[in-house]
Amino acid sequence: MSALRIDLNADLGETTAGNPVADDAAMLEMVSSANVATGFHAGDAHSIAQTVRAAAERGVVIGAHVGYNDIAGFGRRFIEYQPEELADEVTYQIGALDALARAAGTKVAYVKPHGAMYNAIVHHEAQAKAVVDGVKAFGDIPLMLLPGGVAVDIAEKNGLTVIREAFADRNYNPDGTLVSRTLDYAVLETPEEVTARVLQVAETGSVTAYDGTRLDVDAQSICTHGDSQGAVDMLRNVVATLKDKGIDVRSFI
Amino acid sequence: MSALRIDLNADLGETTAGNPVADDAAMLEMVSSANVATGFHAGDAHSIAQTVRAAAERGVVIGAHVGYNDIAGFGRRFIEYQPEELADEVTYQIGALDALARAAGTKVAYVKPHGAMYNAIVHHEAQAKAVVDGVKAFGDIPLMLLPGGVAVDIAEKNGLTVIREAFADRNYNPDGTLVSRTLDYAVLETPEEVTARVLQVAETGSVTAYDGTRLDVDAQSICTHGDSQGAVDMLRNVVATLKDKGIDVRSFI
Amino acid sequence: MSALRIDLNADLGETTAGNPVADDAAMLEMVSSANVATGFHAGDAHSIAQTVRAAAERGVVIGAHVGYNDIAGFGRRFIEYQPEELADEVTYQIGALDALARAAGTKVAYVKPHGAMYNAIVHHEAQAKAVVDGVKAFGDIPLMLLPGGVAVDIAEKNGLTVIREAFADRNYNPDGTLVSRTLDYAVLETPEEVTARVLQVAETGSVTAYDGTRLDVDAQSICTHGDSQGAVDMLRNVVATLKDKGIDVRSFI
Amino acid sequence: MSALRIDLNADLGETTAGNPVADDAAMLEMVSSANVATGFHAGDAHSIAQTVRAAAERGVVIGAHVGYNDIAGFGRRFIEYQPEELADEVTYQIGALDALARAAGTKVAYVKPHGAMYNAIVHHEAQAKAVVDGVKAFGDIPLMLLPGGVAVDIAEKNGLTVIREAFADRNYNPDGTLVSRTLDYAVLETPEEVTARVLQVAETGSVTAYDGTRLDVDAQSICTHGDSQGAVDMLRNVVATLKDKGIDVRSFI
Repeated sequence: MSALRIDLNADLGETTAGNPVADDAAMLEMVSSANVATGFHAGDAHSIAQTVRAAAERGVVIGAHVGYNDIAGFGRRFIEYQPEELADEVTYQIGALDALARAAGTKVAYVKPHGAMYNAIVHHEAQAKAVVDGVKAFGDIPLMLLPGGVAVDIAEKNGLTVIREAFADRNYNPDGTLVSRTLDYAVLETPEEVTARVLQVAETGSVTAYDGTRLDVDAQSICTHGDSQGAVDMLRNVVATLKDKGIDVRSFI
Repeated sequence: MSALRIDLNADLGETTAGNPVADDAAMLEMVSSANVATGFHAGDAHSIAQTVRAAAERGVVIGAHVGYNDIAGFGRRFIEYQPEELADEVTYQIGALDALARAAGTKVAYVKPHGAMYNAIVHHEAQAKAVVDGVKAFGDIPLMLLPGGVAVDIAEKNGLTVIREAFADRNYNPDGTLVSRTLDYAVLETPEEVTARVLQVAETGSVTAYDGTRLDVDAQSICTHGDSQGAVDMLRNVVATLKDKGIDVRSFI
Repeated sequence: MSALRIDLNADLGETTAGNPVADDAAMLEMVSSANVATGFHAGDAHSIAQTVRAAAERGVVIGAHVGYNDIAGFGRRFIEYQPEELADEVTYQIGALDALARAAGTKVAYVKPHGAMYNAIVHHEAQAKAVVDGVKAFGDIPLMLLPGGVAVDIAEKNGLTVIREAFADRNYNPDGTLVSRTLDYAVLETPEEVTARVLQVAETGSVTAYDGTRLDVDAQSICTHGDSQGAVDMLRNVVATLKDKGIDVRSFI
Repeated sequence: MSALRIDLNADLGETTAGNPVADDAAMLEMVSSANVATGFHAGDAHSIAQTVRAAAERGVVIGAHVGYNDIAGFGRRFIEYQPEELADEVTYQIGALDALARAAGTKVAYVKPHGAMYNAIVHHEAQAKAVVDGVKAFGDIPLMLLPGGVAVDIAEKNGLTVIREAFADRNYNPDGTLVSRTLDYAVLETPEEVTARVLQVAETGSVTAYDGTRLDVDAQSICTHGDSQGAVDMLRNVVATLKDKGIDVRSFI
């Protein structure tokens, strides 16, 4: 029997104007995939390159965390683009990051949309198609997405591999959406809960909603985050437990 | 005897915020090399991609026109960088443009620094080295530079091919510098003068200063520009004359 | 009987990265109100200041042409903001321009939203309210808007004076919307047509739709543009005719 | 005998892309002057406005922390400007912040240059003059500067009030420069040392260099910082001690 394994991904390389958003060094010791910002929603060439080099040294796989062209809004504001504009921006971002990655001896191995773009393409067909076109213009690399939604369908119809992800520390509604952050049970609070979530995904690809409904989301990666000391510490705990249980943290690649 | 040939290059892809700087379509009918902006001093992903696609259709060779990160100043203000910052920005820019070029069936074949960066690295050793490092991190592609100056030496010592360029319509001082634009003889005014300049470079690689001094600048390319209707019309004239004389306008690649 | 008068406004100060969009100097000889960019969709502090100084010298009234924070898209892409974000951006833009205007001996006398923001607030109530809030946070100065639409109502309910504008060279549908640019009768082509439009607005505040329907839009200003040589030449013609007919080109202030 | 008083200033409003640099709320409980970013080196309109409103509520005086137009470099890279460009950028920044401040019931009461600009104008006469011109174009408000250097002279010759500042936690060389951060005695490590520094400035306006040399810098304000939890905690300690000793923390205004 082969050992269980799971990919942990995190958003990194978001240092803007010299000020870090996450503790990239700490996170790179734990995750297997780094969604690295490309300078459009956050990051600048040098801070991105530093994260890429650190990831390459630790064997962490690099994904292009493509976003809307919106530093001021951290890519969290929906922007209405002409599809060709958006596709070209996606290709540009992947290429920029890939050049830095190749200089560090690695490459961009997948793409994950960020923020408002990630959310928009769950339902916005024209933008979903544009993102898929922008990725394919670069090359046939996997696209990491929220399970369900039109982007998954469009990507697969257009021949891209889709990596579905689950969230390490968010509660799910029975319909597969995330519990709103305005509700007091939005977030899993303890390392035990988060570890159980990660184990379930590693073993079955599914997650369990807050009411006990089992959701077969077919997740191959788990989104973690390192934007607070508490988040980093909890993840350290979770990763130690995974190790004890013989679960490999390893990229889907 | 083989036919004479010369490379004509021009700065293109500088449309920012929807507003074109040059008549890219007209210029792409005439030049053999397009220095395409990368979004740092001008251009955005979509306008750049449009220029790249138009260049690819016409067989015009694409160079990365890398600049300082300064849209507000059009890359014309000197900026003091840490060398690693500048190198990473150069690699980022080439990679972004190369992804768009490859999507159009071509690639970035050379790099030409823009504006204040072009001028600074004639004498600023640390920045010259950073630019060379940034290019080499992307790959061993030629660097187009002003003859003379430290960047030429540093590039060649580090194994890069240097393309030296001459200016189609500027008068030279006997020491090889350009006559200042504050002087009334800074610019060659007539198609005849410009044609003679181009022919001289094609035949000998040299230019003649305003006082008759012959300057062996070993130029392999000629910088033209299309930022006014007058400039475009004059170039059209010059190119027609070259054709009549059997001079090939062809890339140095 | 007092002489007829009309305000002509135009978008100016949009020079970005050193490259002018319109012929500001020529336009400032003709218009009475300058919608000056603020650096968000176009313009930088220095180019804006130059336009402001030229406007002040000629007695042209200055309006703040506020836009989305989107140089890359020239403010032509709709962006989804939190209302407070948008309001604060509007106040910021007016204040920045007003400081430059006061340094030139004048001030910001009105506000006109630009591009996608101008169009969005015709129907987007939250953004219309945010723009009104942003203006009022600066001071009680008039807001120039498209007649009809929710922004007009919200502005007036909140105590702002609204300046309704008509378009000098666009055909109207009978419902008051502009004929789409995709149709061959979108634009008025001759100086005679444009002059007739301006005269009608000066005399009655109304415009006539392409099918002869009279639209009582109560316009107090006419939007002209100077983004091509043809547009500038035509306006020169129109202004000369107005002068011959004794119509004053004068601000609504 | 009147009570001793001292102004404490700190750099605030630098939240960029949603990510805070300092703990603005904690710092506003302690300082009497807030150097608020203007969006050029950091900050966006909404985050700036939030800081301005919080400062206004606590009666903290607002200064415009003007910087080079360089979000990517956090204003820490020297940029070579035409003087008029720089002056117009300074005026623009003050005006933008002042509009937000007035909406919050206060105003910009002084200007403090940031980062590379702060350092450059100690010796760069043309830029020092440009900054002074940019401030005066806005109005006759004080300029906060490093004691010594050409900016102080130029500002005073041009009629501006100069506020000289000292550093709360940095060691000084006997020539009045700061001990380089590369040396192990660059920073004062204990609350006792920092409190002694603040007291000395409050009592005499002077500071004592690491070798015991007394430097009569005539400081009227003390620069503190809140960019780490440790820095915030130490300042809390220092402020409590000042209170115990009956020293007023109060603006120089």
